[in-house]
Amino acid sequence: MLRIADNLQITNPAVAGALDRFAPTPIENLVRECVTAGAQAIDINTGPLPRDSEAKMTFCVTTVQAACDLPLVIDTANPTAMAAGLKACRNRAIINGFSLEPVKLEKILPLAAAHNAAIIGYLLFPDGHVPPDADTRLNLAVDIWSRAQQAGIAPDKLIIDPVVVPVIWQDGHQQAMQILKVLQLLPDILGFDVKTIAGLSNLTAGMGADPRRLTLEQTYLAMLAGAGLDMVLLNSRHADTMATARACNALTSPQVFTLEGI
Amino acid sequence: MLRIADNLQITNPAVAGALDRFAPTPIENLVRECVTAGAQAIDINTGPLPRDSEAKMTFCVTTVQAACDLPLVIDTANPTAMAAGLKACRNRAIINGFSLEPVKLEKILPLAAAHNAAIIGYLLFPDGHVPPDADTRLNLAVDIWSRAQQAGIAPDKLIIDPVVVPVIWQDGHQQAMQILKVLQLLPDILGFDVKTIAGLSNLTAGMGADPRRLTLEQTYLAMLAGAGLDMVLLNSRHADTMATARACNALTSPQVFTLEGI
Repeated sequence: MLRIADNLQITNPAVAGALDRFAPTPIENLVRECVTAGAQAIDINTGPLPRDSEAKMTFCVTTVQAACDLPLVIDTANPTAMAAGLKACRNRAIINGFSLEPVKLEKILPLAAAHNAAIIGYLLFPDGHVPPDADTRLNLAVDIWSRAQQAGIAPDKLIIDPVVVPVIWQDGHQQAMQILKVLQLLPDILGFDVKTIAGLSNLTAGMGADPRRLTLEQTYLAMLAGAGLDMVLLNSRHADTMATARACNALTSPQVFTLEGI
Repeated sequence: MLRIADNLQITNPAVAGALDRFAPTPIENLVRECVTAGAQAIDINTGPLPRDSEAKMTFCVTTVQAACDLPLVIDTANPTAMAAGLKACRNRAIINGFSLEPVKLEKILPLAAAHNAAIIGYLLFPDGHVPPDADTRLNLAVDIWSRAQQAGIAPDKLIIDPVVVPVIWQDGHQQAMQILKVLQLLPDILGFDVKTIAGLSNLTAGMGADPRRLTLEQTYLAMLAGAGLDMVLLNSRHADTMATARACNALTSPQVFTLEGI
């Protein structure tokens, strides 16, 4: 399971300030901290970038890859910014992401084939709503794969995100269990060993600083890994969660078991 | 997932001494500690009890149920001790356990129907060897259920143990993953929602006091719960593992989600 740091996001005032001033140091420092903590890829979440989108995304990607050689997950709903980010990216690139929403199918999905990038497909309804259960998600996955094929995406370039929801939603913990079922069944439903990703911090969104959220996060991460998850987007500052992710890999890897790195 | 304390075992010198001297206090204190830590059942592992087996098991069961009202898991390979324990038990009783080993089929299995107790069935070969993979375990489960039916056991009284092995075995971590598959497939294979149990401390047996064993234990426990495990035998002194077990329940329960108790 690949550990992707979700720390580089525009909601972090240090990142927002650096992006406004085109100041590389705060971003470089943050990226180095993620790498030291064990991140294996960096999500660059710039938000929609309403102004200077090309210049800002180019600056961001250039700065991050000056500080590390990791794969970059380019995370914006702005197609112009996405294209600029992919153009600037020399590391392996992952587009984050598309769904069945018409504007995403039209403007974001074609960028994957054009830039030979992997792309995350969200199991959401075309209007952006979250599906209620596993069966609905699996039907959406069939549609997502069909659209990806039409756009020239190879099976190994598609990454399905079943969409973790906050556990404090009325049906949040039941959704969490349905997602395990989705991960278990997806390879059979799509007919190939499709890659999968989940955004772990969604689970505990809205829970504030309650320390039990970390126990919950670690527990659910292990459940996801046991169900076959390939990549996780997580807060690399949560040291125990990072240790859990490494323990997941020690258990799920076909390689010889080792405690190194846990 | 029911948390069963594995702390009351003959390999603990305090327990062995108490049993030798028929001294209740050390056992009562240990049971109260388990209850305070969040145990929901107590495994009474007396070993084979070669001498005074009936008196010692009767003393042990009587002492434990004087200290708590929890279900008791009576854990011995000695059929005479098992029968004495079941006779003394007023709380809910679980027999631990039988396998396809001829002596267990002949001497232990019949005690379940005779005492209206639940019974744990181990997925082991008749000679006691551990099966190598999920498919072999599932075939053994069919045989175990067939033998249980012949012995008059109702579906809700059988508890399957897929047999966790030490992760440091050559194929230990691959076996750990195969067991997740067994838990996922068992209800379909047996045709009913069979209860399941696992002995968690087996996973890290032989790893000494390495602190990473606790991370590994918590991670695998969550994977087991995500795959559908109903009961876990664990060390109730491992506070973080007990918290993980409670977090598993918060996520897997059909009840309204709550952080209480995590």
